[in-house]
Formats: sequence, C-alpha cells, structure tokens
Amino acid sequence: MTQHEPDDSDERRRSIGSRRNPQTQQAILEAAEALLIEGGVAGFSIEAVARRARAGKPTIYRWWPNKTALLLEVYHRQKVAPVHNDTGKIETDVALFLTHLMAHWGNTGAGQVFRFIVAEAQRDAVAAEALRRYGAERRAQTGKIFTRGIERGELRGDVDAELAAEILSGFAWQRLLTGRLQISAEEASQVARQMVRGLLAPGR
Amino acid sequence: MTQHEPDDSDERRRSIGSRRNPQTQQAILEAAEALLIEGGVAGFSIEAVARRARAGKPTIYRWWPNKTALLLEVYHRQKVAPVHNDTGKIETDVALFLTHLMAHWGNTGAGQVFRFIVAEAQRDAVAAEALRRYGAERRAQTGKIFTRGIERGELRGDVDAELAAEILSGFAWQRLLTGRLQISAEEASQVARQMVRGLLAPGR
Repeated sequence: MTQHEPDDSDERRRSIGSRRNPQTQQAILEAAEALLIEGGVAGFSIEAVARRARAGKPTIYRWWPNKTALLLEVYHRQKVAPVHNDTGKIETDVALFLTHLMAHWGNTGAGQVFRFIVAEAQRDAVAAEALRRYGAERRAQTGKIFTRGIERGELRGDVDAELAAEILSGFAWQRLLTGRLQISAEEASQVARQMVRGLLAPGR
Repeated sequence: MTQHEPDDSDERRRSIGSRRNPQTQQAILEAAEALLIEGGVAGFSIEAVARRARAGKPTIYRWWPNKTALLLEVYHRQKVAPVHNDTGKIETDVALFLTHLMAHWGNTGAGQVFRFIVAEAQRDAVAAEALRRYGAERRAQTGKIFTRGIERGELRGDVDAELAAEILSGFAWQRLLTGRLQISAEEASQVARQMVRGLLAPGR
C-alpha cells in the first residue's frame, strides 16, 4: 500500500499507507477547492490537485476513487446548509431553503460543480454510487425541516419527512439541471405553499 | 442549402433543401430508433443513423443540430404518455403517472436514453436548450392532470397546475438520475398523497 508512481519531485508529502493522514487530506481538499474557485470544473484534474497539494496521485486515488468523488466532497464542504433556518413556520422554512439553495448554486460556482457531478454520475458507476450516498445524507438532513414541523404539531404525524425532503430536492435539482435558477421570493413561496398546504379544495 | 459532404454512396436519399422531407425525416427517425433499441445510447452516432437511413449527415444536421436533439425526438416518440389516465381522482392519477413513468424508464431503454440526454445538457448549450424546451412542453402536458382536477372542483382554484406538474416531474427526474426507479404501488400512493393532500395538520 505504499507504492507510488515514479515521481520527479522530492517535496511531495508521503502517504503513510491506507490510513488517512488528516494533514495531507486537508491539503488535498484545500488544493482542490482553490483550483475549483480559480478555474471551475473545466480545469479541474487529479493531476492538478496533486501538484498543488504536493501529494502523490496514488494518495489521492486511495481516498477518493475518482475525480467526481473528490469534487463531491469539496462541493459539500463549500455548501452553506440552509436547513437550519427555523422560523417556526414550515412554509417559510421551505421557501427560504429553496431561495438560499438557488442563490448558492447560481452565485458561487457550486451550481456548475453539482451539474458536472450529476452528469458524471450518469456514465460512471463510482460517481453514481457517491451521488446516491450523498443524496441519502441530504434527504436525512433536509428532512429535519419537516421533522421540526411534525414535532411542533404544524404537520400531520403521518408525514414522511424524508419523502417531503426528496420532493423539495427533486424540484431544486430539475431547476438546476435545466438552468432555471432564477427564483423570486413570490415564486419560492408559491412552491412552498403548494408543497405543504396541499392542493385539495376545502372539504375534499 | 443543397450542399452535401462528398459521398461515396449513390443510394442515399437526397434532401430537397431546408424544407423537411417527411419521408426522409421518417426514415431518419426510424433508423435512429432501431439503432437505439439494438445498441443503446453507447453505440448511437449520427454517422450510424445516416448509414442506416441512407441519408447524408448534413441532412440530419440540418434538422437536428446534434446527436442529443435527435435522441430527444426519438425518446419522445417512444414515450407512452401516462398523462391520459383519468380516474376522476387526482391522487390516483398522480400515482399512476409516477408508476407508469418509472416502469417505462426502467423496463425499456428509455431511462438510459433520458439520463444521457440530461447529462449532455450539462455540457452542451444546444442540448441544454432542447431539454429546456422539452421540459416546458412536458409541464404543459402533465399540467393537464392538475387542470382536470381544478375543473372538476377537486383542486383549489388557485393551484398552479404547471408548477404542480413541475414538482411531480422533478421528483421523477431525481429518482431516475440516482438510479432509484423501483417504486411500489404503496410508495407511489404515498408520494401522490403528500403532493396533493398537503402536509398540514387539520385546522392549520
């Protein structure tokens, strides 16, 4: 597990086998993040990350099986979780979640990075598995918005909080993947209203 | 507009300029469909379609700006629209829509084709525009499920039918893009229930 590719630099950090070295790991993630900010996803490569972090490519591949897995971790680190808005009203929490997520995707490079990750996951099984795992984690996290609503009696007890989170997240993904991130506060409220208030006429 | 690339076959159908020749168009779409069924999206190329349809590549490119645009039209032709289920009950219509769409994606090659199209749209502006237009058409179509519900008084009059369709479709896309197409009748009903019955506790 200590094999390295032939290496023309003496300055590289040496891995200590398959245990993750937190310092090296941190250096790799920071290098990856800096490269993404500077050049976007187009110029991003394991090669460039290795050079910048002064790490060996095999070290990187030992921890992240491919470029997409590394991108996903960097993407997640950068993400400001809008789950923690707690206005005490589910409709407002959902509208804020949407508004913040769309703005984060649109205003930072994060939307482009995530679009790339989703695209990669359609042709690469390792990326697909990483995205699937990430999606499950996010549903559990975002589900908290709805769990809070159940706990304070605002939502019905038989609501599936993770399913509600999945519906919300699917809406956001489709907007991102079709390049329609502009959302006004009014539109976000209408989405939230239709998601949580139900569509049925009174008495149905 | 009658220029062709040099061509080593005498048998190719000749285009009559930029007007679409319905017979040639039909031959191209049928060739594309047959190739997709035989070899999936991996072996699909404009070159192979041209050969099989005995059409010139420039003829194909005149009508479909790239491979993804052609794929999208073939994908759409194959699709059995599950919008026309009209059980008279919105929850059942939505559950059926989901169940049919997931089964169509999973059981035919259509899911793989659509995943490819979405992935391409993340890196190619022409594909992105084609997908955006297709999405808008689908929202209008799928919106009819909800419009019917409004018309028969089952849904509130202030429901945005296309937005409801978008929420439904976003959910389905995310399932497809994360490879989770297995959906039981019970799960489809729960999704439909949460989408249309609302999540709020009685009296809120």
